[in-house]
Amino acid sequence: MKDNTKHVIVIGGGFAGINFVKQLEKDKRFLITLVDRNNYHFFPPLIYQVSTAFIESSNISYPFRRLFQEKPHVRFHMGELKRIDPMAKQVETTTGTLVYDYLVLAMGTATNYFGFENIARYAMPMKTLDDAMNLRNHILLRMECAVRTTDLAERNKAMNVVIAGGGPTGVELAGILAEMGREILAKEYPELSDLKSHLYIVNSAPVLLPPMSTKAQQEAYKVLEKLGARIILNTKVVDYVSNNVVLSNGETIPADTLVWTSGVTAVRVEGIAPEVVISGGRIKVDAFNRMAETDTVFALGDQCLSMHDANYPEGHPQVAQVAIQQGTLLGKNLSRLIDGKPMKPFVYHNKGTMAIISKYRAVVDLPTGFLSGWIAWVSWLFVHIIPLIGFRNKFVLATNWAWSFITNDPTLRLILRPDKKERTP
Amino acid sequence: MKDNTKHVIVIGGGFAGINFVKQLEKDKRFLITLVDRNNYHFFPPLIYQVSTAFIESSNISYPFRRLFQEKPHVRFHMGELKRIDPMAKQVETTTGTLVYDYLVLAMGTATNYFGFENIARYAMPMKTLDDAMNLRNHILLRMECAVRTTDLAERNKAMNVVIAGGGPTGVELAGILAEMGREILAKEYPELSDLKSHLYIVNSAPVLLPPMSTKAQQEAYKVLEKLGARIILNTKVVDYVSNNVVLSNGETIPADTLVWTSGVTAVRVEGIAPEVVISGGRIKVDAFNRMAETDTVFALGDQCLSMHDANYPEGHPQVAQVAIQQGTLLGKNLSRLIDGKPMKPFVYHNKGTMAIISKYRAVVDLPTGFLSGWIAWVSWLFVHIIPLIGFRNKFVLATNWAWSFITNDPTLRLILRPDKKERTP
Repeated sequence: MKDNTKHVIVIGGGFAGINFVKQLEKDKRFLITLVDRNNYHFFPPLIYQVSTAFIESSNISYPFRRLFQEKPHVRFHMGELKRIDPMAKQVETTTGTLVYDYLVLAMGTATNYFGFENIARYAMPMKTLDDAMNLRNHILLRMECAVRTTDLAERNKAMNVVIAGGGPTGVELAGILAEMGREILAKEYPELSDLKSHLYIVNSAPVLLPPMSTKAQQEAYKVLEKLGARIILNTKVVDYVSNNVVLSNGETIPADTLVWTSGVTAVRVEGIAPEVVISGGRIKVDAFNRMAETDTVFALGDQCLSMHDANYPEGHPQVAQVAIQQGTLLGKNLSRLIDGKPMKPFVYHNKGTMAIISKYRAVVDLPTGFLSGWIAWVSWLFVHIIPLIGFRNKFVLATNWAWSFITNDPTLRLILRPDKKERTP
Repeated sequence: MKDNTKHVIVIGGGFAGINFVKQLEKDKRFLITLVDRNNYHFFPPLIYQVSTAFIESSNISYPFRRLFQEKPHVRFHMGELKRIDPMAKQVETTTGTLVYDYLVLAMGTATNYFGFENIARYAMPMKTLDDAMNLRNHILLRMECAVRTTDLAERNKAMNVVIAGGGPTGVELAGILAEMGREILAKEYPELSDLKSHLYIVNSAPVLLPPMSTKAQQEAYKVLEKLGARIILNTKVVDYVSNNVVLSNGETIPADTLVWTSGVTAVRVEGIAPEVVISGGRIKVDAFNRMAETDTVFALGDQCLSMHDANYPEGHPQVAQVAIQQGTLLGKNLSRLIDGKPMKPFVYHNKGTMAIISKYRAVVDLPTGFLSGWIAWVSWLFVHIIPLIGFRNKFVLATNWAWSFITNDPTLRLILRPDKKERTP
């Protein structure tokens, strides 16, 4: 290692982290260490399809080491961040302490339970691949319970699924679960009938998909209603007691499955001055994603809040496109920085937002207008296949989808439960 | 349900159970309930490829409910057998009690640790899909540890893999792990070098693949030796203390990974008269797979022992072909039984045995002769693709293999660890 090599540590290999590394690794004056608690990058917009067994985990994930194969100046360190020490320029992880010249925080968000203890304990979150596989196992196991019981109330409880949250994750999950009930379960569970009326979606806002256009909101409502989901608006899930989901309107829904997609909070980092952590736990950064009051620590994507973009004076939305664009720009800016050139400020280019509601039906808000139905679904498909890393993932995902859509009948409904038993004596 | 419908309970959906159900379901006079602790059938000969991330679990498994879709007289009951009561004609499972007219036990074998407590506790078995995924996670995690440590002894321990058992599972696993070390790890772990000398295979017999021909044994030895594996014969693994594998010759090998493929024992069932359970825990059956001293309980495949086949006076080998052929015959025989016709005795047709040792190299013993090398590998490929249930599995498996073999570089090395947290309040 030459003396003037700069060591950059990146915490988190999501959209922001990966796009930053992909850009910066072109500049061989940097040694980059990516720290992540998982050994793979994954594509969060599709985890809801993993949770319903439409696709495999491996279709939307890619090992970091494979991604950086034969790039010896990019290293991977598996571990969780414990704290940072900006004065000593070092980070402490669960698997060792590392020293940096520049530190990039790109850890995204975690599920926010807003202090509801029972919900935090028993609800199923939908943030990670492991969450998605847990939900898959849980729903399939509850179906097996429903089949075995002869008690009607028990059966309803086992089959009822309540989704708390009417954002894209909640709506997309509701859509695919409703499809599943209609197309698959009736054929495979001869003991059960009337599978359509077991799905509830509860949202605190007066609409579904609040950040999208009114047209998108209405389309989502119409499609989910037609699929048989019960949509409860202006209402919050406030507790989960003895398998009963308690709503803010006083109603309770008996349900063994509560999926929590209601909120996120930026991941907190120990070692950061409290005044730098602002709204939603996000780290205050300048126009170059530099953390306030430092020159060697940066934060990207969902974890940061920049109020220097004239079009977004309150900060950018916590979406993939912001993370991707910030990651790439910071990669370029670090090269400029060590060249002594001025860095370029971040300006967000909104490419539109989209959600898939059911088979062949999606909604897309573009800066130039609104798309729905089949055309929206095809554009959704393109947008979701193209960013997936690796030809194999694209090919296998396309094959899986084609198979699932042609046959209406994916074959992945396996309850796989590898244990976490410690194997070393 | 008509009064004269006979209820048949089958415990275990492996080769024997599935082939029995596939045959018997043609006869609509039977209602069949399949009991299994998993919700899927899987193909054990390929789990070693799951454990090394060459293929996905879903490539070699198939949900029972999908398999019996739209066959309402075949039911699935998820649960583990606790005990049988042949007098009352009922079985007690972890998820309820069921009553039968005929009972078929097809539960196969479990790993036999021969009473070695430390080995049972810390070694990795290789019997189930969950075992295979646990081994995948474990090996990948140990590699991450090896990367992080600077202590050479610690690093060796983390990277060393000892396989106890030189049968097909041990040999096949050794072959694919050696390939992995040679083809992949060097590219992805720039921090490590000399990856070939970390694989040990220990066998108590004086040869590898003891039940196969001398030619097959020699070929296996030659190929594994060339791949850099250390082969230790005439030796047993007898203990596993503080990450040290203790051998019967007094040697110890420091290793964080001990894979145990050394022995199996038939699954024991409570409620069976002790005199019926003979060698290796197998249940004594007559030529029609009927359990001794009963007329309504049958046992199939690895779990039973029949000494009525003139060519196999000591009983049949515990291999897939015996289980498949017995399952199909019993399906036919139960129809004969309720027709008042005599049942046909089981006669085993040996189609040969095979093992794959490395990429493009396999060994095949046929009743008519011996094959090795590339031709053996192609026939291995056919034999393993054809029995896989479902077109999609065949297609995706073929695609995965083609991809892995062309690129030498599968992309599935994900450490996925869904938890087992109880989610219902």
